[in-house]
Amino acid sequence: MGKKNKGKGFEGGIASRAEDFSRWYIDVVKKADLADHSDVKGCMVIKPYGYGIWENIQQSLDKRIKATGHLNAYFPLFVPESFLKKEAEHVEGFAPEVPWVTHVGEEPLDERLAIRPTSEAIIGATFARWIQSYRDLPLLINQWANVVRWEKRTRLFLRTSEFLWQEGHTCHRTEAEAREETIKMLGVYHDFMRDEMAIPTIRGIKSEREKFAGAVDTYTVEAMMGDGWALQAGTSHFLGQNFARAFEIKFLDEDNEHKFVHQTSWGVSTRLVGALIMSHGDEKGLRVPPRIAPIQAVIIPILRKDSAAATLEVANKMADDLRASDIRVKVDDRDWLNPGFKFHDWELRGVPVRIEIGPRDIEANQCMVARRDTGEKEALSLDGLAAKITEMLDAVQAGLLAEAEAFREANTREVRDFEEFKVLIAEGKTFVRAPWDGTTETEDEIKALTKATIRCIPLEGGEADRADRDILSGAPAKHIAIFARAY
Amino acid sequence: MGKKNKGKGFEGGIASRAEDFSRWYIDVVKKADLADHSDVKGCMVIKPYGYGIWENIQQSLDKRIKATGHLNAYFPLFVPESFLKKEAEHVEGFAPEVPWVTHVGEEPLDERLAIRPTSEAIIGATFARWIQSYRDLPLLINQWANVVRWEKRTRLFLRTSEFLWQEGHTCHRTEAEAREETIKMLGVYHDFMRDEMAIPTIRGIKSEREKFAGAVDTYTVEAMMGDGWALQAGTSHFLGQNFARAFEIKFLDEDNEHKFVHQTSWGVSTRLVGALIMSHGDEKGLRVPPRIAPIQAVIIPILRKDSAAATLEVANKMADDLRASDIRVKVDDRDWLNPGFKFHDWELRGVPVRIEIGPRDIEANQCMVARRDTGEKEALSLDGLAAKITEMLDAVQAGLLAEAEAFREANTREVRDFEEFKVLIAEGKTFVRAPWDGTTETEDEIKALTKATIRCIPLEGGEADRADRDILSGAPAKHIAIFARAY
Repeated sequence: MGKKNKGKGFEGGIASRAEDFSRWYIDVVKKADLADHSDVKGCMVIKPYGYGIWENIQQSLDKRIKATGHLNAYFPLFVPESFLKKEAEHVEGFAPEVPWVTHVGEEPLDERLAIRPTSEAIIGATFARWIQSYRDLPLLINQWANVVRWEKRTRLFLRTSEFLWQEGHTCHRTEAEAREETIKMLGVYHDFMRDEMAIPTIRGIKSEREKFAGAVDTYTVEAMMGDGWALQAGTSHFLGQNFARAFEIKFLDEDNEHKFVHQTSWGVSTRLVGALIMSHGDEKGLRVPPRIAPIQAVIIPILRKDSAAATLEVANKMADDLRASDIRVKVDDRDWLNPGFKFHDWELRGVPVRIEIGPRDIEANQCMVARRDTGEKEALSLDGLAAKITEMLDAVQAGLLAEAEAFREANTREVRDFEEFKVLIAEGKTFVRAPWDGTTETEDEIKALTKATIRCIPLEGGEADRADRDILSGAPAKHIAIFARAY
Repeated sequence: MGKKNKGKGFEGGIASRAEDFSRWYIDVVKKADLADHSDVKGCMVIKPYGYGIWENIQQSLDKRIKATGHLNAYFPLFVPESFLKKEAEHVEGFAPEVPWVTHVGEEPLDERLAIRPTSEAIIGATFARWIQSYRDLPLLINQWANVVRWEKRTRLFLRTSEFLWQEGHTCHRTEAEAREETIKMLGVYHDFMRDEMAIPTIRGIKSEREKFAGAVDTYTVEAMMGDGWALQAGTSHFLGQNFARAFEIKFLDEDNEHKFVHQTSWGVSTRLVGALIMSHGDEKGLRVPPRIAPIQAVIIPILRKDSAAATLEVANKMADDLRASDIRVKVDDRDWLNPGFKFHDWELRGVPVRIEIGPRDIEANQCMVARRDTGEKEALSLDGLAAKITEMLDAVQAGLLAEAEAFREANTREVRDFEEFKVLIAEGKTFVRAPWDGTTETEDEIKALTKATIRCIPLEGGEADRADRDILSGAPAKHIAIFARAY
């Protein structure tokens, strides 16, 4: 839509990924029609193709959230000011970014209403009414919603003033059970991103400095983007009894005592679309993992004057066959664009498999099929095509994951020397695993000196040896942390 | 959740539907755990069971919206004040109900932002950038979103300050094509409500007085509720070029002329959950049409001390079998509630089919199955149960529709005498078809005298005979309109 390219040449050029990753990213988002800036500062419009990716993420993750026993519900967009203030750290963390509603029509409100930056407060107040007895626990709720956190510097999908997300909110009888839930949902995110989005992530715990405002512990899944920077792809919080105390969420236990519940919350957002672009894109544009792709295969009929109608008929018939095998397919029948333009256009949009079919192919009962991930092209018989395309889609899915894993592997370093640390971080392309003394002072100093942040203390391999010394302070190390530049 | 009934007796009593329909409605919404009031005045919390109904509505309607060529996208929650003001009738219609954001954190905004009451303005401004050529048309977009219209008097699902909906927004090259789209989407709503929700609706056009602020014509699907009142269940607007002119949505046509597009918009909301309750409920509570039901069959194991584990095992095995046949099933294994309580509880929640299984049933290789719509109960063999339950669910679906159609039929009257008109409207249980002279004056006067509004001029049977005279003014009739009391 709105594309002005009508002629022969493909004018959808994008910046070089190798030379200017940031510019490349924005070019891909805009020229692949994923999203655009809106007329409201900091807010984006998610265009149909980008929203199609989000819908697939949403549907697929929603199944996993439900399979682990959670139910969806919906809570108000607005949070009364007095509610937001009930948990001190929480309000401190979010207040500067909160839009306030002060009037309706011309009438001033009695109390200002915040647009939700997250829903712990409004949901906590509701849970207090829903829960009476231990039999009401665990309470396992999820919400798909829009949230607003006003951002000064925005970047499409990665940081926008309004974004879409899911937020899980659960209440438990014991701390152990709530902690188990926190880790379980972190695992759901990890598996989902690996299996559906072909994005490998590292599960870990955030430092005190980086944790969610109001949480006891914040866990994260961290992914390495194509430039070696880190992206926090999802978080899972153990909230302890902080909100339970603030909102009086109590239950009568079997021993006839009233107790505060133990809570968790966890979320992923439209940021995942940004993660997908930066994980899998290449110099030609986007590469969408087949399981998430709105269009898994595009058929480009080679339309010659005499045979256009016949070719199009075969193309449409092929599409029906593929659809019957649950392949999401589109026939590009735009007759005012030449095939070369279309090849580039669908490469830019990252459709996993391209199928070309022309009069000569039809005579030979074959078509040309190209894989977007490797660029490999081969002639395939029209007989049994759907099964072969399905296999190919599986291969693309696996290939993208393998590539992302190998890339992360190749760009992760175990470091014990601060000079080496500084060089690696300055290059900005590496996850550096290094000993940390566990203090915020050291963490702050490392950030000031290098711009590296602690992405997490990984659940696997985060334990320091007795002999390890902090990479900067030289004090005994408490953990092996992952340091990186981050989005 | 939060239910205090722990003992033997069912305490979920609801008001009599026959005696106090309004009170009955609120009781059902609350006691069936569909929704509740929130801590934000006028906004509701949609509880998991109610949200499950909405999710099924959403998924099922979304398929039909996509099957007719529309793509989903997402636009900002906020509408800058200057945008809302661009279409004069539009802002006049919505301004009094709009919440305004004036500050972010402690900083005042340069321009106030409205929380979207509907998105014609923000989407129109975006479309102006997306569309250049006739090749970009038709542009067929849909959005699932929350919207806010501050209401003084609210009623759960039917009228709340925040609600969830879908809003379709399309642009076309010609008026004829846009008009065709308006009617087509009205038809999609009509068929969806009939086939999935078992709600028969009347398609018609709204009077000038009742139309959408900014539209040329508003079409509606009107449903009769269980008390004979009308509910506007969905609307489809032909917008003409009103917003195209306000937002400069132009395209270069094949004849090399720049022209304004012709637009439509159409929407249905969480109000449909209210329509479902009021269409199908009875004295025992809700009756959910199987196609929309979050739980289609509930299995209640009769748990006796000695055989509880064995019975539960059989119940779970039955559930697995039913699930394998795509039946949404739940085993009520709460061992602190007796079967009688559970029967009433699931009747209140309107689950279409109840299956009881106890030790004696197991011995006889059978179970007791009860239909929620008719109350019929029969013993069924455990062999081939899934197929029989599937058949039964189809029968319930068809039964609910037939019942609703018969009810509407029985409560619709053709009237030519104003005294009779007044009596019928005063009783408030009838759709009255009567001649109307087409003037807003008469419409207003009828409303003032009787509280009846014109629901629509039906697409079928809305034409007056030459001899027809307006029911009140006696002037020559322009249409046969449907008058009723309405939600």
